[in-house]
Amino acid sequence: MSQQPQLFTSLSPALLHLYDLSNSIVVIIDVLRATSTIATALYNGASAVIPVDSVPLCIKTGRQIGGITAGERDGKVADGLSYGNSPFEYPRHFIEGKTLVLTTTNGTRLLHMALANGAPAVITGSFPNLSAVCEFLLRQHRNVVLGCAAWKDRVNLEDTLFAGAVISRIRDAFSINCDSSQMAEALYLSAGDDLYGYMKRHNASHYHRLSGYGLEKDIRYCLTPDSAPVVPVFDGGKLLPAQNV
Amino acid sequence: MSQQPQLFTSLSPALLHLYDLSNSIVVIIDVLRATSTIATALYNGASAVIPVDSVPLCIKTGRQIGGITAGERDGKVADGLSYGNSPFEYPRHFIEGKTLVLTTTNGTRLLHMALANGAPAVITGSFPNLSAVCEFLLRQHRNVVLGCAAWKDRVNLEDTLFAGAVISRIRDAFSINCDSSQMAEALYLSAGDDLYGYMKRHNASHYHRLSGYGLEKDIRYCLTPDSAPVVPVFDGGKLLPAQNV
Repeated sequence: MSQQPQLFTSLSPALLHLYDLSNSIVVIIDVLRATSTIATALYNGASAVIPVDSVPLCIKTGRQIGGITAGERDGKVADGLSYGNSPFEYPRHFIEGKTLVLTTTNGTRLLHMALANGAPAVITGSFPNLSAVCEFLLRQHRNVVLGCAAWKDRVNLEDTLFAGAVISRIRDAFSINCDSSQMAEALYLSAGDDLYGYMKRHNASHYHRLSGYGLEKDIRYCLTPDSAPVVPVFDGGKLLPAQNV
Repeated sequence: MSQQPQLFTSLSPALLHLYDLSNSIVVIIDVLRATSTIATALYNGASAVIPVDSVPLCIKTGRQIGGITAGERDGKVADGLSYGNSPFEYPRHFIEGKTLVLTTTNGTRLLHMALANGAPAVITGSFPNLSAVCEFLLRQHRNVVLGCAAWKDRVNLEDTLFAGAVISRIRDAFSINCDSSQMAEALYLSAGDDLYGYMKRHNASHYHRLSGYGLEKDIRYCLTPDSAPVVPVFDGGKLLPAQNV
């Protein structure tokens, strides 16, 4: 029992400082839609995904490296960028061999926070790469912190559900003394198989926001496991598939 | 719909700043055991409960006003204080007409934070006064923030379950655009009637800590609704029953 690695869940970036990241793999979770899109683009052959925290930096970086610039504000492609945040914009025939420069708010900040706090490994998690992430964590045999990106620091349902999905699959290999983890798993198990219906029924704030932009198809995809089995590892400012790191 | 007051849940003191308290009733929740003991002492006739954040201040205040000093550290009555944190220490024949000076860590800090952030009314909630709190909130017809005291800023199961219990009873009277509230309610509803068993099954960190001190009886009491129907209102550094404010 005591020799098992520990697992914690941080439900918001504002709680991340409570956990010791210095000896942990940190999984950044931004289900709608940053980490789902990151997994999808890498699975479809993108050379790398570079997450940046602002539109000007996205434009500048895209120009420097000849990358695809992407990001949305209020549900539309941001001024000066070429593509949006939807995973459906990045099929293999488009993204293979290219570098995607993606501007996100909550997710990017958390990726940098995790590294700044000394995490030896930072990866991204989402339902499209759920099993790949779980298998990676089981292989590493190290402490894990599941870091939900949330929404402007407010805890959200979809990131918590993903944390719960991970925990429900790998809990036997970890020592879990963390109520947030217990809660996330209990929520996930109570939600059943229809996560889309669950989000809708519970009037999740992000469901509400995105469905208002007509993005139900994105939401369904982002709540469906294992269509993009890859482990994006954040290192040197880039996300690369685990086997290439 | 838009004329209904809003309800939010802050799962940790580290998240309280995300919510606008200036026009909200804030309910401070510290189920194990501060707010359960506060409700019990006031219901049993205590003149007032004065929450303080340190043992020295507890001793000093107790001396100044001739109050009962109480507080624990590591499961034992703290050096220099006379009583502990258990609600069973404050039956009517002992506490009636007396002032209880109670030192708590998580709960007291949050009470002061809520007032400092401009909340027009701050009350305390716990299962022993669940229905009384709900009826109070329904009568006021104002915005509500449920503020979980948590454990050193880490989200805990029992405070979240209490928030969920409140929400499940009053949700129809409020507009709830808050995933933390939806999650708290879903957890509470999934837990069923046996909250003690639920806490135990989910290895809640605080259950674990207190049961290690032999406090199962306290835990059971603190998870049982409505044995102390009173609404403690925090004003001028004191908690008093609502009708006396």
